[in-house]
Amino acid sequence: MTDAADLAARVQAGEVRLHELEQHADADVAAEARRLILTEETEADLDAIGAYTFDAADAGPNIENMVGAAQVPMGIVGPIHVDGGAVERAKHLPLATTEGALVASVNRGCAAIRAADGATARVLKNAMTRAPVFRVADVGEASEVASWVRENVDELAAAAESTTNHGELRDVTPYVVGDNVFLRFAYDTKDAMGMNMATIATEQACERVVESTPAELVALSGNLCSDKKPAAINSIEGRGRTVAADVEIPRDVVESYFKTTPEAIAEANTRKNLIGSAKAGSLGFNAHAANTVAAAFLATGQDIAQVVEGANAITTADVREEGLYASVTLASLEVGTVGGGTNLPTQAEALDVIGVSGGGDPAGANADALAEVIATAALAGELSLLGALASNHLASAHEELGR
Amino acid sequence: MTDAADLAARVQAGEVRLHELEQHADADVAAEARRLILTEETEADLDAIGAYTFDAADAGPNIENMVGAAQVPMGIVGPIHVDGGAVERAKHLPLATTEGALVASVNRGCAAIRAADGATARVLKNAMTRAPVFRVADVGEASEVASWVRENVDELAAAAESTTNHGELRDVTPYVVGDNVFLRFAYDTKDAMGMNMATIATEQACERVVESTPAELVALSGNLCSDKKPAAINSIEGRGRTVAADVEIPRDVVESYFKTTPEAIAEANTRKNLIGSAKAGSLGFNAHAANTVAAAFLATGQDIAQVVEGANAITTADVREEGLYASVTLASLEVGTVGGGTNLPTQAEALDVIGVSGGGDPAGANADALAEVIATAALAGELSLLGALASNHLASAHEELGR
Amino acid sequence: MTDAADLAARVQAGEVRLHELEQHADADVAAEARRLILTEETEADLDAIGAYTFDAADAGPNIENMVGAAQVPMGIVGPIHVDGGAVERAKHLPLATTEGALVASVNRGCAAIRAADGATARVLKNAMTRAPVFRVADVGEASEVASWVRENVDELAAAAESTTNHGELRDVTPYVVGDNVFLRFAYDTKDAMGMNMATIATEQACERVVESTPAELVALSGNLCSDKKPAAINSIEGRGRTVAADVEIPRDVVESYFKTTPEAIAEANTRKNLIGSAKAGSLGFNAHAANTVAAAFLATGQDIAQVVEGANAITTADVREEGLYASVTLASLEVGTVGGGTNLPTQAEALDVIGVSGGGDPAGANADALAEVIATAALAGELSLLGALASNHLASAHEELGR
Amino acid sequence: MTDAADLAARVQAGEVRLHELEQHADADVAAEARRLILTEETEADLDAIGAYTFDAADAGPNIENMVGAAQVPMGIVGPIHVDGGAVERAKHLPLATTEGALVASVNRGCAAIRAADGATARVLKNAMTRAPVFRVADVGEASEVASWVRENVDELAAAAESTTNHGELRDVTPYVVGDNVFLRFAYDTKDAMGMNMATIATEQACERVVESTPAELVALSGNLCSDKKPAAINSIEGRGRTVAADVEIPRDVVESYFKTTPEAIAEANTRKNLIGSAKAGSLGFNAHAANTVAAAFLATGQDIAQVVEGANAITTADVREEGLYASVTLASLEVGTVGGGTNLPTQAEALDVIGVSGGGDPAGANADALAEVIATAALAGELSLLGALASNHLASAHEELGR
Repeated sequence: MTDAADLAARVQAGEVRLHELEQHADADVAAEARRLILTEETEADLDAIGAYTFDAADAGPNIENMVGAAQVPMGIVGPIHVDGGAVERAKHLPLATTEGALVASVNRGCAAIRAADGATARVLKNAMTRAPVFRVADVGEASEVASWVRENVDELAAAAESTTNHGELRDVTPYVVGDNVFLRFAYDTKDAMGMNMATIATEQACERVVESTPAELVALSGNLCSDKKPAAINSIEGRGRTVAADVEIPRDVVESYFKTTPEAIAEANTRKNLIGSAKAGSLGFNAHAANTVAAAFLATGQDIAQVVEGANAITTADVREEGLYASVTLASLEVGTVGGGTNLPTQAEALDVIGVSGGGDPAGANADALAEVIATAALAGELSLLGALASNHLASAHEELGR
Repeated sequence: MTDAADLAARVQAGEVRLHELEQHADADVAAEARRLILTEETEADLDAIGAYTFDAADAGPNIENMVGAAQVPMGIVGPIHVDGGAVERAKHLPLATTEGALVASVNRGCAAIRAADGATARVLKNAMTRAPVFRVADVGEASEVASWVRENVDELAAAAESTTNHGELRDVTPYVVGDNVFLRFAYDTKDAMGMNMATIATEQACERVVESTPAELVALSGNLCSDKKPAAINSIEGRGRTVAADVEIPRDVVESYFKTTPEAIAEANTRKNLIGSAKAGSLGFNAHAANTVAAAFLATGQDIAQVVEGANAITTADVREEGLYASVTLASLEVGTVGGGTNLPTQAEALDVIGVSGGGDPAGANADALAEVIATAALAGELSLLGALASNHLASAHEELGR
Repeated sequence: MTDAADLAARVQAGEVRLHELEQHADADVAAEARRLILTEETEADLDAIGAYTFDAADAGPNIENMVGAAQVPMGIVGPIHVDGGAVERAKHLPLATTEGALVASVNRGCAAIRAADGATARVLKNAMTRAPVFRVADVGEASEVASWVRENVDELAAAAESTTNHGELRDVTPYVVGDNVFLRFAYDTKDAMGMNMATIATEQACERVVESTPAELVALSGNLCSDKKPAAINSIEGRGRTVAADVEIPRDVVESYFKTTPEAIAEANTRKNLIGSAKAGSLGFNAHAANTVAAAFLATGQDIAQVVEGANAITTADVREEGLYASVTLASLEVGTVGGGTNLPTQAEALDVIGVSGGGDPAGANADALAEVIATAALAGELSLLGALASNHLASAHEELGR
Repeated sequence: MTDAADLAARVQAGEVRLHELEQHADADVAAEARRLILTEETEADLDAIGAYTFDAADAGPNIENMVGAAQVPMGIVGPIHVDGGAVERAKHLPLATTEGALVASVNRGCAAIRAADGATARVLKNAMTRAPVFRVADVGEASEVASWVRENVDELAAAAESTTNHGELRDVTPYVVGDNVFLRFAYDTKDAMGMNMATIATEQACERVVESTPAELVALSGNLCSDKKPAAINSIEGRGRTVAADVEIPRDVVESYFKTTPEAIAEANTRKNLIGSAKAGSLGFNAHAANTVAAAFLATGQDIAQVVEGANAITTADVREEGLYASVTLASLEVGTVGGGTNLPTQAEALDVIGVSGGGDPAGANADALAEVIATAALAGELSLLGALASNHLASAHEELGR
């Protein structure tokens, strides 16, 4: 009987609890024991899930009840030519996805961007937010608490920053709804995505609020953060990095790479991404920015649930004298190059490929660079899909003329 | 010189293009060659990315320019006790994530649900949509096209269904904005997530529209679908599965599992998930449904970019005589048990663990069951986080009283 | 002592209640008595408010606690040349407003539309909605109730239509959120705006739902109607009349009427009305449609609080070969030519000016015509403001060049 | 032949243009002439429209092409007992409306508020905004312009404030979307609603931006203001006055005034105003705040098209130990007591009734007070309608029990 089989038997005998196996064996054995139990209970084979190649103990901070790993194919796009605020030209970007044609599509866009002499990208804002909700007696008290907060930002900053070596409190904005006071704390979290840092810092600041005002804390997150929900507050005010990328593509490059015209791409963008999204009541005015964001997040160890806000993007496309101008602005791209899933082996390597793993110099520069690369890749993806949609249309039009 | 090294050299010599390597070698060698090139260009080590354990050729439909795979830790939650329309009680659900504490949190919610004698879940609607946009001359013509479509749904259905063995056209709804006509086609795509099926079928139907009316197709997707964008049309009308799960938890179970009261959880839900989300201009009235959805999607081979719509969820929590009533309603959960990434080894195994891999009996039953299991897990995750937020608050209150 | 003074004294003596004066005197005397009391209590003069010229008794169905009337200046725009589904060309439209320049601005747009040989307008949809909310035990029961409703639309229609001579139930759509079932009833209410008709009919239908299912009615309106709230469900699915108007204006007409170019207007529309509104998280993608709608509503006795939904409009503007194409699509314009405030003297006269007072032939034709006229006036207003914005820009540009 | 008939004849002869009549006769004669022409052209009688009782010349700043006035019945509600930041208890509020039962409903709520010992109200924020849109070359330039603005707020304030005696620039926030830069200027406009003041001041500031940066002005309003559109940016950040009112109503008062319980009202509020609005994709989480806002705006000379933003309100209702707590928070209530329509006779009198006409002491106090009174009346209206909905439900329940 192997160690794992023995452990599994003890679970089934009720001696050990499934989520406590790591206390009784090393992490790999614990995972194996869970697979044995699951196989027995569900008749499923878990060989592939068990064939992960990292050291299970290293995943300890990222998972509980581990049984193994999901393996998701990873492709490469690039080089991405981009003139950014934090990134120099020619970056490769790994994308992990199961959606066929996505990597090829983004890659086609990257080629067009190269032929157009590169894109421009900029991080426009950087603010990881956490917004607790407090209960007060009435709107009179709410007004007083909001005033106190506005006048004591320095004290709140001192409290918040006492919990972190890197984070800086940038701003606290109070919002009142009846007997609810929401305080949106915004931090510069440097190269970390910063959700945890922001939460811990905010918890400390909340104590000051509770001590100094009649407000009582109801929940450390009151959804004005807004984390992992598609919210206008993020689209408008940003969260994580607000980042934009754009490019001007000569007419002949548009025609040779996308088999269509700047006019057709601009029209598709207006009718689909602007008017269609308007009619749909959407916060996403783009074609498929989420695809690129999700695949880049998965490859580089970001929090994939934050693709939700990453999709709050606006794509524009206009005909200029020289050809096509196109841009993508991602309002709330939460990325980090330290912490989270960035230390796991395949994810760390992916960051290495981009050249942005670990802390940047200056602090924050690596996360900025990652944001700019992803934004440019998203731009490439938008161009490619818009081009495909527009050229199909042209193709049909040509067939029609041929009749 | 290995095959891969040789291939890499030929790329660097400009003889072969990076995305065409599969034409010159088997898929694993092609991936290895790309890793060699990347390592040389970026100085990044790609050993872990290259240590994937599936056959690269099998990932052909899912990836291009493959270099290897991302390995994401997978944990297990459950058993999930749920009385669903398509699922029987006691299901295990694998979750792949890098967010520490997520699996533990969802698992705690599952335990509470078990102690409460299980949750209820139902797929309420099933409709994969695709909405092309057409150009017309003016609003008069728009009105005529819309009327023609309303009167010729049968003809459009025949055209659409000629392209698919499984899909059924349920409905076509026209929306007009000036000289734009959007047609939202809604399909029952059975056990497939169905985006491709819907696209191909809609393309065929569009030809009929173009032949029979003056409308000209601008783009096969006009963003009223709405795919991978956070759009109200999905929150309201649904996309993929509209699915809800709920549970009634006795007061003592709430207290023992969450160290708080039904009242405190209900209050946190109202102030955070309802009022906070309202103030944030959000389409997501929940705590962190996206976390559970994303981790389940990643484990089971779903399209992770569709987490965007999966996050359009409303969580409710009320005090009832017996204790706490809580529900999660996911408006647009796009899931499949065939196609997409579901055939990849680790993903297929994960579906096997749940017992829903491949086509269901009747068709659609497996995808329904998967939706119900994910909804119940999302409910567990909501309960657990709300409980944590509420108990922290109580904890602080207790400390305060102790002073 | 006048009758009014006497009545006022009795109120002050506590013998009569302020809102019951009409039981003790005719309506004009009652109003006078209230003015006397108010003047005494607040030292305000109410002479102008008391100088209304209609018979107070006639306003009985429209007001309680009447003290007099607000007098709002009314101007005239037109003739509006429009080829509509229900309206013939050359209509005048009275607008009541206190916003200087509004009438002039809309009128300028009307002139341009005339010079362009007229606009086109169409009512695209007609559906007054009411959406009660029901409580059920759980999502299982919710699913059953929704199914019952879908299968018993005819029975619900019979119940609903038993309460009205004119209204027809077009559709009932169930929406489920946890233990809430919302049923959105949609009616053709002909020439009435129809809110009351829809409410009464829905109340009757709700009784059938309550009798035949376990659902319990919580509120006759559950906000999915959605009345007087800015809601995406109205922007998407419409409420009242969904109506669009458009025009193609030759380049020289644009230049002579707006002192700018089609290109500049199209650019202003894209950057302001589409992209700006997208960034603002707006349901209104227009410049100032609400201005025209509000002034027309006020003049013609519509419910001015429904301007809220009337503002859910999308304006498009594109350069075509011949010049400028522009459109306005109002998703949810709730108008009537019978009932509500349409019988009051000034309001009835305003409808007469348009030629749409009372019931139409066929029923609904007058309200359709009113909707088309208002939409065309809104288009005129959009053109005029966009022209002004664009020409200021050009003016500045010219000045700049002159330097 | 009267003067008016003569003038009308000259218009019909093409000698004078309809909108220029005020250059040829006094304003009342001009209006009469227009009525004569309209009567002839449309066969409509315009006697009531012509029976206005103010001096037409006084309406010159408010209307063009004047033909007369709309007379809208005005009722009175109150006294409204409110403890505000700028208002003392016991205010009467005139409401002009054609919607039967509205005044009675609000008045019932006012009575309940009085019985509960009054409401509390506070202006939480005060900021009239204008947001021009600029064109830049690319996102790099956009980033520079945004930085320049952030660093030069003082210069922009000096420019803006040079145009106004009263207004103060509070803040300028840049928002970037691709090659668009939006600058949201926020002003304290004291007792004026301030739209014109903000526009003129912003125009001046824009010149500085254009002089000092490469940005080119496209439109003085870029829809991030956002004026007369239902936009999340207003719901979140406010516009005009952000104002809240609340009240705690003892259980017995709830029962005697609303014939229902605090529990039933809280439930109706949660299911309808919170969950229903959430499902509807709404920016308005209330029952009918727009009704009260519209009627108060109409009575007091506000801009009725701004009811659109006034409807961005959240209503909360909870059971507290003592009974019912309810609040209404209006995010963007744009009100003034000087300028606009406030000088017209009936409107000025209505402001006198409230005691807030003209400039306040300190400046802004009158507009603050007006905002607080309207918010409290809106609260009264919410309570009354929620009570009616909830008691109908109880009534039905009682009938049911009686069977």
